Amino acid sequence: MVTPCISFLTDYGLEDGFVAACHGVIMSVSPGARVLDITHLVPPGDVRRGAAVLAQTIPHLPCRVHMAIVDPGVGTARRAIAVEAGDHVFLGPDNGLLSWAVAAAGGARAAYELTNDRLHRRPVSATFHGRDIFAPVAGHIAAGMALSEVGTPVPVDRLITLPAPTSRLRDGTAEGEVLCVDRFGNVQTSITEGDVSAIGAQPGVTLIVTLGRRQLSVPLRETFASVPPGELVAFADSAGLIALAVNAGDAAQRLGLPPGAHVRLAVAP
Amino acid sequence: MVTPCISFLTDYGLEDGFVAACHGVIMSVSPGARVLDITHLVPPGDVRRGAAVLAQTIPHLPCRVHMAIVDPGVGTARRAIAVEAGDHVFLGPDNGLLSWAVAAAGGARAAYELTNDRLHRRPVSATFHGRDIFAPVAGHIAAGMALSEVGTPVPVDRLITLPAPTSRLRDGTAEGEVLCVDRFGNVQTSITEGDVSAIGAQPGVTLIVTLGRRQLSVPLRETFASVPPGELVAFADSAGLIALAVNAGDAAQRLGLPPGAHVRLAVAP
Amino acid sequence: MVTPCISFLTDYGLEDGFVAACHGVIMSVSPGARVLDITHLVPPGDVRRGAAVLAQTIPHLPCRVHMAIVDPGVGTARRAIAVEAGDHVFLGPDNGLLSWAVAAAGGARAAYELTNDRLHRRPVSATFHGRDIFAPVAGHIAAGMALSEVGTPVPVDRLITLPAPTSRLRDGTAEGEVLCVDRFGNVQTSITEGDVSAIGAQPGVTLIVTLGRRQLSVPLRETFASVPPGELVAFADSAGLIALAVNAGDAAQRLGLPPGAHVRLAVAP
Repeated sequence: MVTPCISFLTDYGLEDGFVAACHGVIMSVSPGARVLDITHLVPPGDVRRGAAVLAQTIPHLPCRVHMAIVDPGVGTARRAIAVEAGDHVFLGPDNGLLSWAVAAAGGARAAYELTNDRLHRRPVSATFHGRDIFAPVAGHIAAGMALSEVGTPVPVDRLITLPAPTSRLRDGTAEGEVLCVDRFGNVQTSITEGDVSAIGAQPGVTLIVTLGRRQLSVPLRETFASVPPGELVAFADSAGLIALAVNAGDAAQRLGLPPGAHVRLAVAP
Repeated sequence: MVTPCISFLTDYGLEDGFVAACHGVIMSVSPGARVLDITHLVPPGDVRRGAAVLAQTIPHLPCRVHMAIVDPGVGTARRAIAVEAGDHVFLGPDNGLLSWAVAAAGGARAAYELTNDRLHRRPVSATFHGRDIFAPVAGHIAAGMALSEVGTPVPVDRLITLPAPTSRLRDGTAEGEVLCVDRFGNVQTSITEGDVSAIGAQPGVTLIVTLGRRQLSVPLRETFASVPPGELVAFADSAGLIALAVNAGDAAQRLGLPPGAHVRLAVAP
Repeated sequence: MVTPCISFLTDYGLEDGFVAACHGVIMSVSPGARVLDITHLVPPGDVRRGAAVLAQTIPHLPCRVHMAIVDPGVGTARRAIAVEAGDHVFLGPDNGLLSWAVAAAGGARAAYELTNDRLHRRPVSATFHGRDIFAPVAGHIAAGMALSEVGTPVPVDRLITLPAPTSRLRDGTAEGEVLCVDRFGNVQTSITEGDVSAIGAQPGVTLIVTLGRRQLSVPLRETFASVPPGELVAFADSAGLIALAVNAGDAAQRLGLPPGAHVRLAVAP
């Protein structure tokens, strides 16, 4: 179901008035739109983290328009874009931030650079395109403007994409990398539930988890709460990816795994 | 006054997309409902803190439906419940989180386990019942579904309750415990304004505050701002409970009092 | 454009139920009003920081009513006020918090002390005027109540004002002070883009930045992203003020500049 709402993700933080200014501009342009904040606590400039949270959250939102801004190159030659994919329209910098969500929505059907400056707020701040470019354009799109009016077409194969997180099978193991750490310290890997099934691992088995040179025996269970407090566990998380957790503890802290670290899973003999 | 809104409290944090996913699901099920966020920064798994914030905030909200999730046992045998109390419906895990708010609303009149899985999102994630069970059920209730449709009845005397915070009179003193510490470092005790009146203490007197082996002389005033900056003060806080504060400072840090610590108050001779 | 919304800024934090209680009270009084949160993470009691964020954000909001509470003197003799300025109504403590926003809106035309206690919630907590005084009065004003009904007139020249941040020209230099540090560690000075133009500095030049006894050569550019990562840069920020930043880094940490520190800018010879 699609209702007139705009999802909104940034690295702006919550201590300044940046997020509110964007809300205000959207409300001015499109008084009927609802803005659904995904998060504004993406670590400053962490495009990859923003891309992961965006792609994993959007399937659960009834919004058609999505505005995402983690934009370390604001004001430089990087393009400001709107991308159509499935029933969705994504707005943000062309730096890969949107790419995983676009792919999850079926891939880009059309893209435009936001060059129609009659839609922008004047003067455009060189460092706050969220307020002056993305927010008003998102408001206009939510209010019904055709996407082709926002600017000049960009060939979809010219859009910047981030390398997709890997989940692959090799020699009876499932391989991937650390994708995200959540508030609870759960370490989300890029290895899918499907790949773990494919190596014959079902909840109840013990996994051999290889992290660089370390090898750990970790039970695969339905949920972190299936093991005693303080113990390590693997489970398929709410995004369908294998996560490592410590029940009532912090696995990221315990394991010291940075995003991008290599992970391999095998079924214990 | 009761309007179609849903209050929402969790320990999900604000850096991931968890809260937004729940908002999205509610919006899909019940487009007209407003969601009023209480807080999502309950420390991970801190059921007692969640219970206190919930019970103290709800009297000021015009919402009939309340969804609260601090759920360290998600995916295990703990029940997901809906409880009717006064004009309110509370949804959450049956781990005591709801119990103080339910008691404050007049006690449970009826309770149901959320077993009607036609209302849930499929597949149900074992670790994210907020998104897949509580949010859609809350949406349906806000949209007018009868509570009896959400699942099977649970006898109200079988619901898990947390021990109520104590406030009692003994030998001319008022006794209780540390309940919460707020953003300002104010230490909220479980001792009621009424019990402090009962021992003859009115704003203006000096209290003898006994904390374990320590004894402090603390002025009882109308507000923390009634003493000079840097000085300790006791006052009846906005929930009607006695709090210890340092004007323009952090009493929790100064006193080092963890939640649950014993506190006794007497009027200085 | 002006729609029935209320902006809301405090130092209440997000971990307690304080912000939600205010939302709930407003919703009870004025079910149709939208509340637009600016921030609730003003450092506790930091009136100056609150004043700066408020004044810089309001120009971008379509709201007529603004409620701002950073109120270290709550419950003392300080007045609770409503101030009319331009098309706006500002509510908050009379401690200077509102003064920069009022000035930016054209100056106070009328002011009232919130003495009409029929509008307040009973009993009024001595420490939570946000919930019991400001929120219900804001709701009534948003719902159309005449400002003169909220209490007794206060002569506008008796309102407390903060000293305005300085930006002045002297001997071919532009002088000011550190105003704010944002989430990215960017150091916002009080020196205006106009004053920097007046000393002949345009993006592309090098500035001599004097901070106490230190002198630094800093390029003036359109945006922080115009210099390589890790390098210091000056730019006119989204509020039209000169800021110092480190591209992909934290200038506040690098420079160790507290709010209020003196800054002087000159064009390098």
